[in-house]
This record gives sequence, C-alpha cells and structure tokens, in this order.
Amino acid sequence: MRSRETYAGDRRVLVLVCDKGEEAMQTVTEAVRRHGIGAAQVTAVGGFRRGEVGYFDPQAREYSRIPVDGQVEVLSLVGDVAQRDGQAEPHLHAVLARRDGSTVGGHLLRGEVYPTLEVIITEVPPELGKRFDPETGLALLDPGPS
Amino acid sequence: MRSRETYAGDRRVLVLVCDKGEEAMQTVTEAVRRHGIGAAQVTAVGGFRRGEVGYFDPQAREYSRIPVDGQVEVLSLVGDVAQRDGQAEPHLHAVLARRDGSTVGGHLLRGEVYPTLEVIITEVPPELGKRFDPETGLALLDPGPS
Amino acid sequence: MRSRETYAGDRRVLVLVCDKGEEAMQTVTEAVRRHGIGAAQVTAVGGFRRGEVGYFDPQAREYSRIPVDGQVEVLSLVGDVAQRDGQAEPHLHAVLARRDGSTVGGHLLRGEVYPTLEVIITEVPPELGKRFDPETGLALLDPGPS
Repeated sequence: MRSRETYAGDRRVLVLVCDKGEEAMQTVTEAVRRHGIGAAQVTAVGGFRRGEVGYFDPQAREYSRIPVDGQVEVLSLVGDVAQRDGQAEPHLHAVLARRDGSTVGGHLLRGEVYPTLEVIITEVPPELGKRFDPETGLALLDPGPS
Repeated sequence: MRSRETYAGDRRVLVLVCDKGEEAMQTVTEAVRRHGIGAAQVTAVGGFRRGEVGYFDPQAREYSRIPVDGQVEVLSLVGDVAQRDGQAEPHLHAVLARRDGSTVGGHLLRGEVYPTLEVIITEVPPELGKRFDPETGLALLDPGPS
Repeated sequence: MRSRETYAGDRRVLVLVCDKGEEAMQTVTEAVRRHGIGAAQVTAVGGFRRGEVGYFDPQAREYSRIPVDGQVEVLSLVGDVAQRDGQAEPHLHAVLARRDGSTVGGHLLRGEVYPTLEVIITEVPPELGKRFDPETGLALLDPGPS
C-alpha cells in the first residue's frame, strides 16, 4: 500500500493505492487509523481477483455472504468512515463487474486487490460516531449534534 | 433524519443519516433546502426496503418507472444538487443489490430507507442552475458562466 | 461542453456538463488538461446513447471491450485523474442501466452522452503520477512520497 496525505485548505485528503494481493477492507481500515482520520467520505475504483460482499437480511438481522470468484472490475467503492468503540471503521459498498460486464455487489466484506485499487478518502471533520441499533443489531452512523 | 453540518475551510459538508421508513429523495431535498445548499456533490450508501427508479426513454421523452420490491442494499447513490425554479433539487442515480448480489438501478424516484442511508453532501459554491431542454423535456444542469 | 471552475478554500472544483453527442472520456480529458488539473477525484451521473467499457483480463494483460448499445442511464461514473507522461489522464469506471434497470459496466472506454452528463471534478493537489507496471502492462496510480 502506498499513500499520500494532502491538505486542501484545512481538509485532509488521503490518496491510497492498494497493491496486488492486499485485502481492501483491512488496508483502508489500517490507513485511516494510522492517519487519525475519524470521519471521511470514500470513493475508489480498481480491480479484485476475488472478494466477498454482504446483503443485510432484515429477518435474520445479519449479513448473508456472497462470494465473488475470479477477476472483477471494481466499478465503484463508495462509503464513509466513522468511529465505533473508539476506532475508525470504514463502511463501503462495492459494485463489481465480470468479464461480460454483468455486475454483482453488496456491502464490502473482503476484496483481494488486483491489479490496483485507487482510493480517495476525504476527511469530514470532526469525528462521526456509530450507535448500536437494537432492532437490526447493526452499528449505524450517528452524525451527533447538529 | 439526523444531520450535522461541518465546515472544511469555507466548504460546507452536510452529513445526513436517514432513519428507517423515511423516503430518501424527500429527505435529501428538504435537508439541502433547509441548509440553504444551492449546489453540491452527493454520495450515499445504505439500504432500502423498497424503491422506484427511472429510465429516461429518449423517444417518449419521459422516465419509465421501474419498481424495486423488497430489501436492497444501496450500493451507490451518486449525484448533484442544483437550483430549479429557485429551489434546490437533488439529481441522484442509484445502484441497488438484491439478496443474490444482482443489481438494478436508475434515476432515483423513491427509496424507502431501511435500516439506514448515510449521505454525504459536499457544497460546491456558488449556486448551479438548471435550464429547460426542449428536445428532451428535461431540466438539465447548467453550470453558468465559466 | 459547459464548465465552471469554483474554489472551495484553496481546493478547485470543476463542474462539467457534457452536451448531447459529446464523447465523455475525451471531454473530461480535455477539460482537466485545459484547467491544469493534475490530480482529482471524479463523480458523474447522466446518460449515454451508446458506449464501450473494458474488462481487464489478467491473462491477456489487456482490456477486453464490451460494447453497450442503445440508451443507458449512467448510474455512476467514479474515478480519479493522474499524470501519465506529463499529461492529465482520467481513470473512470462506469455503471450503466438499461431500460429494465439491469446493469452493465466496466472501465470506461467511450460514452456518447445523451441527454447530459454532469461531472464533478474535485482537485487533490499536488499532482499524482502513474508508473508502468511490467506484470500487467498497465500504468497504475502512484501516489508518490507520503
């Protein structure tokens, strides 16, 4: 993983390029923690050689797992970063395309990068938190006081 | 709906979290009007328990409506905000994923949020307008003088 | 093509609206070069009346071409801008939707705009470069020194 932190006014932008074989969720998570980014907007494009996405099943109150085998284009990876239990956590949704252009996607669980993943993380200061939602069992973004 | 307005330099960022059952287009529209945001870039992720997207039919010069039933992941909601007849109006396109990861999408007409929709609205000052296009019958973004 | 350059603090934002019949890759490429934008994050929505997307085939080490005929919604066009051989080059991935909401996508090779394409280009100063990757034969984003 290679990264560069730049400033646009007082707003930080982290440009992150994941290398071949790196796992995308882990790489983005480690990068935002290391750079102390507590809240951000994220967009990315690139490719995975395999991955796994989730579909939130409201009855089961959990993510069902959808494996994605073989090389796919990452058409979009969009989401945000917020704090959960004192640590920054990305929430990213992926749209992936197969050889014929057909698409599959979901909540990103795992993506093995190949040949690259170009991620732009734009800070939204100050921190955003998450709160536990008993109805769904999920930690949902809570923007805090207006 | 909960929201927080932050400033990054002199650029406003509105973080908006839609609650269960809220309609996404209406919620985003009301929020940008209440905050006086005249032009913006928008990205969002989350889920809908049902929705409706549109496909612009160039012959009919209107959107055909595609209902989306049941819980879907909102893989991306991307678009902008501009002024139409003196009021801010979002233009958002959605990519949605079903239980098996298959996707469906279009111009967002309606989306009933479940369990959450996390929206990041980044202001692009000053205002952007729209102009009526007689050929298509649509109000298209007009960036104004360069 | 109509455009407006705005400043948000010291960060430039270029709002670009492509007109009917313009080719999207060429229009975005020319605009970022004319405005001297060396690195940026890009999002766009709109429509194409035809296009072509690519799938990177890791065995063949080249993009296979997937033609897209007929009117499609551009659900998302996400990517970045970096320097290659001294010239700004956009890297954009597209998700497109047909009349029934089904989607197709890939690395954007060509898109003939109809009726509009609304592009927001947010500068990430300073320049980002690309480096040739012998394993894949691709020019990959290189963020440079951290």
